[in-house]
This record gives sequence, structure tokens and C-alpha cells, in this order.
Amino acid sequence: MSAVSFVFPLLCYSLCFSHIHLQITNKSKESTWALMKSVSDAFSGWLLMLLIGLMAGALAGGIDISAHWLTDLKGGVCLNGFWFNHEHCCWNSNETTFVERDKCPQWKSWAELIIGTAEGSFAYIVNYVMYVCWALLFAFLAVSLVRAFAPYACGSGIPEIKTILSGFIIRGYLGKWTLVIKTITLVLAVSSGLSLGKEGPLIHVACCCGNILCHVFTKYRKNEAKRREVLSAAAAVGVSVAFGAPIGGVLFSLEEVSYYFPLKTLWRSFFAALVAAFTLRSINPFGNSRLVLFYVEFHSPWHLLELVPFILLGIFGGLWGAAFIRANIAWCRRRKTTRLGHYPVLEVLVVTAVTAVLAFPNEYTRMSTSELISELFNDCTLLDSSKLCDYINVNITKSSNELADRPASTNVYMAMWQLALALVFKMLITVVTFGMKVPSGLFIPSMAVGAIAGRLLGVAMEQLAYYHHDWVIFRGWCSPGADCITPGLYAMVGAAACLGGVTRMTVSLVVIMFELTGGLEYIVPLMAAAMTSKWVADAIGREGIYEAHIRLNGYPFLEAKEEFSHKTLAMDVMRPRRSDPPLSVLTQDSMTVEDVETLITETSYSGFPVVVSHESQRLVGFALRRDLTISIENARRRQDGIVSTSRVFFTEYTPPQAPSSPAPLKLRSVMDLSPFTVTDHTPMEIVVDIFRKLGLRQCLVTHNGRLLGIITKKDILKHMAQMANRDPDSILFN
Amino acid sequence: MSAVSFVFPLLCYSLCFSHIHLQITNKSKESTWALMKSVSDAFSGWLLMLLIGLMAGALAGGIDISAHWLTDLKGGVCLNGFWFNHEHCCWNSNETTFVERDKCPQWKSWAELIIGTAEGSFAYIVNYVMYVCWALLFAFLAVSLVRAFAPYACGSGIPEIKTILSGFIIRGYLGKWTLVIKTITLVLAVSSGLSLGKEGPLIHVACCCGNILCHVFTKYRKNEAKRREVLSAAAAVGVSVAFGAPIGGVLFSLEEVSYYFPLKTLWRSFFAALVAAFTLRSINPFGNSRLVLFYVEFHSPWHLLELVPFILLGIFGGLWGAAFIRANIAWCRRRKTTRLGHYPVLEVLVVTAVTAVLAFPNEYTRMSTSELISELFNDCTLLDSSKLCDYINVNITKSSNELADRPASTNVYMAMWQLALALVFKMLITVVTFGMKVPSGLFIPSMAVGAIAGRLLGVAMEQLAYYHHDWVIFRGWCSPGADCITPGLYAMVGAAACLGGVTRMTVSLVVIMFELTGGLEYIVPLMAAAMTSKWVADAIGREGIYEAHIRLNGYPFLEAKEEFSHKTLAMDVMRPRRSDPPLSVLTQDSMTVEDVETLITETSYSGFPVVVSHESQRLVGFALRRDLTISIENARRRQDGIVSTSRVFFTEYTPPQAPSSPAPLKLRSVMDLSPFTVTDHTPMEIVVDIFRKLGLRQCLVTHNGRLLGIITKKDILKHMAQMANRDPDSILFN
Repeated sequence: MSAVSFVFPLLCYSLCFSHIHLQITNKSKESTWALMKSVSDAFSGWLLMLLIGLMAGALAGGIDISAHWLTDLKGGVCLNGFWFNHEHCCWNSNETTFVERDKCPQWKSWAELIIGTAEGSFAYIVNYVMYVCWALLFAFLAVSLVRAFAPYACGSGIPEIKTILSGFIIRGYLGKWTLVIKTITLVLAVSSGLSLGKEGPLIHVACCCGNILCHVFTKYRKNEAKRREVLSAAAAVGVSVAFGAPIGGVLFSLEEVSYYFPLKTLWRSFFAALVAAFTLRSINPFGNSRLVLFYVEFHSPWHLLELVPFILLGIFGGLWGAAFIRANIAWCRRRKTTRLGHYPVLEVLVVTAVTAVLAFPNEYTRMSTSELISELFNDCTLLDSSKLCDYINVNITKSSNELADRPASTNVYMAMWQLALALVFKMLITVVTFGMKVPSGLFIPSMAVGAIAGRLLGVAMEQLAYYHHDWVIFRGWCSPGADCITPGLYAMVGAAACLGGVTRMTVSLVVIMFELTGGLEYIVPLMAAAMTSKWVADAIGREGIYEAHIRLNGYPFLEAKEEFSHKTLAMDVMRPRRSDPPLSVLTQDSMTVEDVETLITETSYSGFPVVVSHESQRLVGFALRRDLTISIENARRRQDGIVSTSRVFFTEYTPPQAPSSPAPLKLRSVMDLSPFTVTDHTPMEIVVDIFRKLGLRQCLVTHNGRLLGIITKKDILKHMAQMANRDPDSILFN
Repeated sequence: MSAVSFVFPLLCYSLCFSHIHLQITNKSKESTWALMKSVSDAFSGWLLMLLIGLMAGALAGGIDISAHWLTDLKGGVCLNGFWFNHEHCCWNSNETTFVERDKCPQWKSWAELIIGTAEGSFAYIVNYVMYVCWALLFAFLAVSLVRAFAPYACGSGIPEIKTILSGFIIRGYLGKWTLVIKTITLVLAVSSGLSLGKEGPLIHVACCCGNILCHVFTKYRKNEAKRREVLSAAAAVGVSVAFGAPIGGVLFSLEEVSYYFPLKTLWRSFFAALVAAFTLRSINPFGNSRLVLFYVEFHSPWHLLELVPFILLGIFGGLWGAAFIRANIAWCRRRKTTRLGHYPVLEVLVVTAVTAVLAFPNEYTRMSTSELISELFNDCTLLDSSKLCDYINVNITKSSNELADRPASTNVYMAMWQLALALVFKMLITVVTFGMKVPSGLFIPSMAVGAIAGRLLGVAMEQLAYYHHDWVIFRGWCSPGADCITPGLYAMVGAAACLGGVTRMTVSLVVIMFELTGGLEYIVPLMAAAMTSKWVADAIGREGIYEAHIRLNGYPFLEAKEEFSHKTLAMDVMRPRRSDPPLSVLTQDSMTVEDVETLITETSYSGFPVVVSHESQRLVGFALRRDLTISIENARRRQDGIVSTSRVFFTEYTPPQAPSSPAPLKLRSVMDLSPFTVTDHTPMEIVVDIFRKLGLRQCLVTHNGRLLGIITKKDILKHMAQMANRDPDSILFN
């Protein structure tokens, strides 16, 4: 993995920008053309946001449509044209009635097509086998494409995007190939029926769009920090198209993904997120002209006493979240360290086969996870044909309320058992699925687990209230004929709780859920569940799934949320330690080219402080290894008289040289004249804060004006790992 | 105004906190009681948020109810009890019909009470006179209370809260007295009919609650930075109760008010905002059990072509916003500089009299501004009795759509004229009202101006579409009998545009408006208007009203949003300048007590750098003037042998003294060992960024390890003023 470090990027960007801006302002006095250019420069940011929104919205629409089609292809094919999905195929059918709108003669299941009948156990077996075969084919294609063309396309991408936004560069992670391959393989992976979602990868796709579109604009191509602002906005766009929640997307980017989120970005992110959401809506992939993935409308308010089951769901979500993270990290570590990691294709195929074989018999695991969640969130109306809504219609005297609580039929109980099995299945299979070499998001599986648990509890509560409406807790608000408990709301609260437990999102989670229902009414249940879930999960393990994966991969990520609460000082962390040899430094006027070259070859540091003299150790500046190497190489090639014995000067004025001595080499221009310093007595708490807020990569340590040592981001990460009793060598990159 | 400076507050807080935390963790091993304490410590933050939410919600409810009552008192009194407002008074009446629900025998106008009749021009004059008298009485009480007890209670408070959150301390600004007086006078000021709102002051009230409740918790009482986090949350609570928009409140605090907004605060702010909103709802001051101030529900979607009038409204909002800021600042400057400022009571009385005299004859200015906005936002249904909804019911063949566009009656045209007059009146009177010595918010007046303009444009569009539905622009979507144009939506968009033009809010504005309607459908019109308005206003003048007032008052506020784009270096800004005498420094071991005292008395700096020696100028630390004074005073009083000739040591070890010499004074403990330094070549851009992000008050400047000078926040503000061609001496405080 090629990674390049940089110094003060977050600080420098405005400087670079102002320079360009100044130039443009001067030019604009010269001609109208230049004026146009200056206006376009001012508006290029907005234009870029517009383009990202359009591109990400269009891609998301394409992904939705293709995934829908391929998912249906596992079950059968349309005779009018194989490119129609089940729903489209039956749109033109005349025989479509409201109840059985997805049964039409044009749509043939594989059994009908191959053996000519859809009845009997042989047909079932044919369908079963075809289902598994298609799933294996999709999964094989996905993993092969990822391995062959874009290894970065696997996973959700959120841990890496967090790391990139914190200042680390992973070349190609947000490139063209990653975008193309991730888009294609995401469709395949989702269609294969694996327990994964497309929401996380969509954020990666949107960030790729942002990064690629940055190259169109000079202002963003050349400026690393400005580009990261664009990536923050792109992350918001990703969530916006994933859930149809633009405000939630912006808050997600702010809370979960971004490291440096200036206010200008907030407004632009919001604009981009809105453009993307409306682009997606005009593509209308769900066919319901709704902006949101799971549109729900509940008919009855919630009662204060229901907070108890909501909090129970929160506890469940927290426990499951924490357990999932532990199990998943343990499994991923095993994959990294044992021979399991050598056979990624086989692993994907085995998991797909197991998933498909176990999923087919249960209708709630056979359908796509988003459909499942949709059905679980749904508030049963009288016309609903779903098994989950098959209540017994009893004639109640007060028949005014059509949606009154009713006794469940055996069908509902059957559905409950199936859901319980689906719950166990999803909980287990997701652990081994997340982290495989295919694009895989975690939002949808987590939400599915929570939604199933919530629906189960909701129906249980509903039946309890129906049969025991005289209990003191139900009396008054759950009289017979009242529509007092909405199992769909429980499913929603459960989904929020599980998602919160896994990702530790807070405000953005509640806002995304709020945008799904559009009513302030349900914020309190959602919030109670999300809060409980976060507290419970945090009590078991501090890290969310993304932080855990960042640590697993050893990315140099300085968590902005975690408080550093140890009382160490800068001198405890800085290099060199007391027993080490002294710090390798350059002097401003007493070294020869050879000395510098020796220092560069003998050490592997990425930069060297420049001091007045070895005796005074007074700091002058900081020179990067790369710049030194390039400058000396260039000078040796192009500049006359530069030999190994040439003196190197970092000073402003070069003293007159003796005529016999070789020409001096002036290197002041490659030196950073404003290196960041702290004193050796600075508490590490403050140092960590400075690193975080200013996005530094290193900082020099002085004592009474003399240079003592250096602290790098890696030193800080190692120190933090040590303080938390973790292995400091797990920090791999620098 | 007594102001105290502080160093590194934002950095130090976690240190202090960790210390307490560590102590508590150790203790918890000792006893269960300590464990309880540790849990309560961890939860005290949440408890504090809960209390702030409850208190602010309750206060907001109280303010709403009292203001409603007093406003109605200007028109008449309830015979059942003078403490009933008009609506409550008529609730018990049997004669209440739907149309005239506010006319009941129990409620007597002043004319009825005094001269026994409500008819005729004499009765009108009596009512007129009583209206003006009550207004004058309320205004007089308000301004007298403010002047007598709490001078800080005037204005909206937002500029000052912004300044406080940026690290400046204004003693008493958030104190008990300010809270009590602001709450009372806010009710009086709103009831007096002045063109002001209660929303801005509610933020101040919520911040007072936050600050006062901080004193209950040790953790927050002692930690300045933690308290500022609480204040950020309290600002969110203020907006939440003002508009019933918890998410918008949090975003407002993030975008507009706060300086340092860690993610932990985000979640807690949201919690507090939600608690406050629900407290307010359970008090139910508007009697409609709605959370929001202006609940609106529109029945028809908007058409893409309508974006043209929406953008026009945006331009209007931007122009008005910029013009308002200029005019208001010019007026406030005149008040500051001329004799006008010496008669604040008279000023308030004159403005109140003019407002009342001009407002009474026009029913749209006579009603309270919130009611006006409510009526303007309203989508006319067939049953509406308002003059604005008095359309002619024509029989259309397609009578299916009951809300179809209809021709306006003369009543509507009359209302239009009255609204146009009200628009001019509000636009002018608000300029002189905002900034007077009474609590005054700007949200409601700005929204009123925009809502009037929007409604006027909306009705014009509607009638245009009705009479010219064959025009090419209306064809297709505005056929006869279609409900194609909603004037209420125009009013809402106009309100957003004007509010945006004045305050330059962006995301928070759109989200607040979104929470009012609860539909993602109308985000695009709102966003288009808000964006246009901000661009237009920014093109005329960069500053929003709050920044303009901060600058007018000379608060030391470093704007976080403005980019510093000049290419100066730290050495151009630092003191001493080249012509100045050298920097006053302390040496670590060569000065006597007398030397230090002389330095302190001869200069007025708030702190002094400590160097190794005058020759080397190597920096050791930084000592605050206050700490030095106190330490020397204490030492002279309590410590034996400390005389004027005693040597002062800032070193770690004191060298052995000659027996004859006086006892040495060790002052290392009062010295900050980790002062912040930058080099003289650091671009000012980076320095400004460091000051902003780390919340510094000063920073030392070095060159090659030698101390050169110092840059204070004031220096930076002066430099920025100079660069922007403003008077640098307008920065008053330090």
C-alpha cells in the first residue's frame, strides 16, 4: 500500500487557495474573459457539488435497478424480455389483481421454465438449485472482479474513508477502477443474497465520484485539503442516496466520517445531498416515487409505558452490537493470521452456498433484506395480504377503529417462528460475511436483525395487550377495540437500536430514522433506544465497528471522539528516548552534501529538523527527506560545481566561500520555516488535541529553546495503544 | 465590563477533568458510595442536560402564556377574571361558534368597559388610546427593569453568546439577575407590540439556565471549557423551544453560535433540545398540542416553474437583509456616538408610541407578529374566515378539487393593500427597534417582512394563473379547477429568505423550516430561496447581523467562518514592532523581586515570557501578571526573608545562595511550562487558524530558537481589521 505523508495540509490549503484567488483577482481587471473565469472559480465548488450529487444519484439509481433485477433473476425470468424484473414484467399483465400482483403468466419461475410445472416437490428442488446456482455465480463474479481489477473495492470502505479524511493517503482507493468495479460487484454481491447491504459501499461509491470529479477542477485537483472537504460532502451524498435522508446524511458525515468539517462544507454537503436525493427520486428505482428506502406511516401514537419495551430493544441492540463487533473482529483477525486468508474466493463461495442453502426454505430470508425490513416496518392495514398481517377479524362492538388490535391467526404465529429462525441465521451469518473480499455494507443486516427482534417483541406486546387488556399496565390505553400497539414501530425502534449498537451513531441515526417517518412524534422512542443501545454497547467495548476495523488494519487514525485522559508529558512520548542515540538533525551551515546524503541513507526518517549548530540545538526549520533527495539529485545533475564536499546552507545568506572550495548548495527553499513545536513539559493531552485539530503528522519538542526530540502521529498512536494496554506494534503504517 | 482572560482553556479542560476522573476511579475501589459518586459523575452531564431542557422548556411556556395574556390585555379584559386571555376567556362561552370563536360576552374591549359600547368612532378612539397606553406602560416597565437591575438583559444576546463561546468572559451576562429580568422584560417587550421577537432572547434565557445549572455540578462549575460546551447545548435548547425544532436548534448552535462543538456535545445538545421541546409541548402554550410555533400543512406540491418566484423572493430577502444590517448598524452607531444614547427610556417610549399609533389602524400590524406570520403561512381552506382567504366561490364543472384556485374578492385585495402598508411599516420600524435597551429578537420581524412579501407575490401569482391559465407558462399545470399555487408556501419561502438575508443562516434555517412543515417536499424551494438570499446578501456585505453587532461593540471575536486570505507573516503582526522597545521578558534566574515588581507596574501586559537570559533569549515559559502579583504578595506576607532584593527563580533547582543573600523566591509553579510558539516565518493564515482551532489568547514568536515577540488575539483582530481596511482601533476589549 503506497502511502505518502504530508505536513500541515489542513493549515496550508487556504494559503494555496488565496494565492490562486489573488492571481485571479488581478487578472480579472484585464479582461472580461478573466472575469468569467473568476466567477467560475467562485462557483466551481457549487458546480462540483452539483455534479457529485447528479453522478452519485444516477449511480445509486442504476445500482438499485440492477440489483432488483438480478435478485429476481434468482427466482425466475420474464418471457417478455429477460431484462425485466418481476414487478416490471407483471406491470403489463391484464390478469394482475391487487392481491396477487406479482403472479402473472409472463413471469416464469425456473421450475416452470425447465420442467414445465411450478407444483410439487421436484419443482421446489429445481427452484432451490437454481437459486443456489445463481447466488454462487453472482458471488463468484463479484469476488473475481474485485480480486482481478480493484482489490480496494471490497468491504464497506467506511473505515478507509475515515482514515483518508484524517489525512492519510491510500493511492487508488478512490480511483476510477475502484468506482467501476465497486459499482458492478456491489450489484452482484447484493443480488447473491449474502447478508450484506449496499448502504456502506454506496458511501464509498459517492466518495469515488467526488474524488474523480475533483480532477476536473484545478482548484481541487491541486489541493489535498480542499479535496478532503469534497470527500466529506460526498460521504453525506452517499448516505443521502442510500436512505433518501439528506439531512441525516450530512449529520452522518459530520458525526461519523469526517475529521475536519468546516461550516462551508456543511452547507455544500447539504446541497449535494439534496441534489443526489432528488436525482435518485426522478430515477424512481423503487417505483413508489418516494425519496426514502423504507417509507412508513404509522397511524397511532405511542404510549409512555411503551418506553419500557423500547429500552429493552435498546439493550438488545447494544448487546448484539458489542457481541457482533467482538465476533467479527475475532473472525477477521483469524482471516488475517491463518491460512483462511489465502483462499478468499473459496471463502466467499462457501459462505454464499451456506447462505443460499439455509436462506431459501425460509421466505423471510429468501426475500432481499431491504424487502424484509420494509415488510417488518409496515403497519398492518386491513387490506394487507402479508402473512405478518393475517390477523383474525373479530367483530367488535366499537367497530369505528378499523386498525384496532386483533388476535393473531396461526399464520402470524407461523411467521413469528420463521422470523425467529431468520433472526438467529442473520445474527450468525453476518459475522462471517462482513469483511469478505466483496463489497459489503453493514447497515441493512444490522437493521434487519433489529427489525426482526423488534417485530417479534411488538407482536408479543400486541397479543399480550389484546388478551390481557384488563391488566393494570394496559388499562386505560389498550381497551378492546383500540389500536394501541404498532408492531411496525417496534421493528423500527429495534432496527435503530441494532444499527446504533454496531456503528455507535447517535444523532445521525435518529435523524435518518426521523426522515424515514417524517414525524417528530417518534423521535423519543428512537432516541431512547439509540441512547440505551450506545450506553450498553460502550460499556462492553468502546469501539464501533469502523474504529475496530481501522485498528485491525492498523491505519494511522487518531480518533477525534475518544478522550485522551492520561497524565503523560510530551517528553515521555518523544523520540529519541533517553537511552537512544541523539536525534538526527541537519545543521544550517556546517554540513557537506556528503554528510546530508549519509544521514539520509543511514536513517529512514521522513524528515529532519534543521538546527543552528549541534552545540546550540536551536531550531531553524524542518526539511523533508523527499525534498532533500530530489534537490541534491537535481543540483548534482544541473548545477555546476556541486560535489560531495560542497557545503549545504539552509541560511538566508550564504557567507562568501574561499575560492578554492566547491560551490555551496543552498537548500533554504526546501525547508519548512514554520515547523510546529511544543515544549517537553506539554501534557500529552494537549499534544493529542493539537494533532487532531491541526491535522499534524509530526511536531518537534523543545526545552528552553533547544531542540530535544520529535513526536510523530505514529508515536502518539503507539503511546495511546500502550496506555490502553494494547499492542503498540499494531500500528502498521506511517 | 469586567473581562478576564485565560490561556489554553480549550486545551486544558480535559486535563482538569481527567484529573478529577482519575481521583474518582481510584476512590471507587474503596467503597460503594464512591462508586455511586463515580456513576453520578459520569451521568451528571446527562442530568444537567435534562435539567436545562426542563427549565428552559418551562420558562418558554411561561413566557408564551404571559405574553399572550398581556398582548390581549391591550385590546380588552375578561370579566370572568382578568388573568384569562381572550381565547381562554371565550372557551367556556356557550355562544362560541366556529366562525366567531373569539367573540363572546365575557370578553369586553376597553371601549365596552369604559363607555359601554363597542360601536362608533368614539369607541374606536377609546380602544386606540387604551392600546397605546398599555403599550407605553409595558415598554416603560421593560426598559426601566432592564436599566435598574440587569443592563445585560437588553438586545437579543446572540452576539454576546457567540463572543462568550469563543472564549471571552463577560461577568454576569449569564447570571441569575439577567435570567429573571430578561424573562420578565421579554414578556413586557413582546406584549408592548414593538417590532421584535422572543426567539433570540429565548436563546439567551436558555443559556442563562445552562450557566446557572452548571453551578450545581462541581465538574462544570470549575471548568470554563466544559461550561462552554453546556452553553452550546443551551443555545440549541433555546432555538428548540423558540420554534419547536430540536434538530434545527442543534444545527443552529453548531452553525451559528458555537465556536467549539465537540461531537459529544452534539448528542447531548440534541437530548436537551428534545427534552425542552417536549416540556414545552406538555405545557401546550399555543393550545393546539403542536410542537411548532407555525404548524403548516400544504395540500398541493409545487411546480418546477415556481422556482422563479421563489428565487425572486430569495433576491428580495438578500437585498432586504443587507439593507437592514447597514441601516441598523448605522442607527446603532449613531446611538452610541450621539446624545441619542443618553436617553434610552425616552427612545423606547417614543418608538413604542410611534409603533402603537401606526400599528393600531391596520389589523395586520395590530395583531401580534407571530399571529400574523401564522395567518400568512396558512393555506386557505374553504371554511377559513380570514379576510385573506375570502375568495369568490365559483362553480367549476370539475368540482372535485375543493381547494382549486379561485378569483380573489375585494376583501382579498383590501387585505393586500393593508399587507403592503404593513410591509413598509415593519421594514422601517424594525431598523430602529433592534438594538434598543429592551430584549429584542430579530427572527420574528424578519420572518414577518418575508412572509408578507411572499404572500403578496403568492396571491399575485395565483390570480395571474387563474385569469391567464392559457399562458404558456401556466398551461398544463394550472388548468382551471386545479389547486396549483399555494400563497402560504410563498409566504414561508419569503420568510426563510428574509431570515437568511439577515442572519446568514443556511442549513439550520432550512432544517428549522423543514421541521415546521415536516415534509421533505418543500426543502428545495426553501433551499433555493435561502441560497439566493445568502449569495445576494453576501455580495453586498459579508457580515450577518450578529457579526456586525459584534464588530460594532468591539468584542474580541475571531470569526471562524471568514477565511483569512492575506499573505502576511507572523513577524509582521507580532509585538514589539521594529521601532518599538524590546519585548518585556523575565529571566529565569537573574532578576530580583524588585525587578519583577517594577516590570509589572511599568507595563500593562497581562503576562510575560520567561527566558533563560537576556542574551540567549531562549524561551522557558510564560507567567501571567495576575499570578505573579499574587505570588509575590503572598510570599512577602507569609514567607520569611523575602525582600525586594530576593532573587526570583523560575528554574527547577535553585542554586545554593550565599548565606548573606536574602532567601530566594521560587516561582516555577506559577509559570506555564508549555506556552504556544510559532516561528516568525509562519504565515498569518496558519496563525489565525491555530488561534481559532485551539482557542488561544496569545502565542509567542521565535526565530531560530530565540524569543522574538508575542501575538495576542487582539493583535490578530487589529491586523484583520487593517487588512479589511477597517479601523483597527474598533477592537475595544482585550
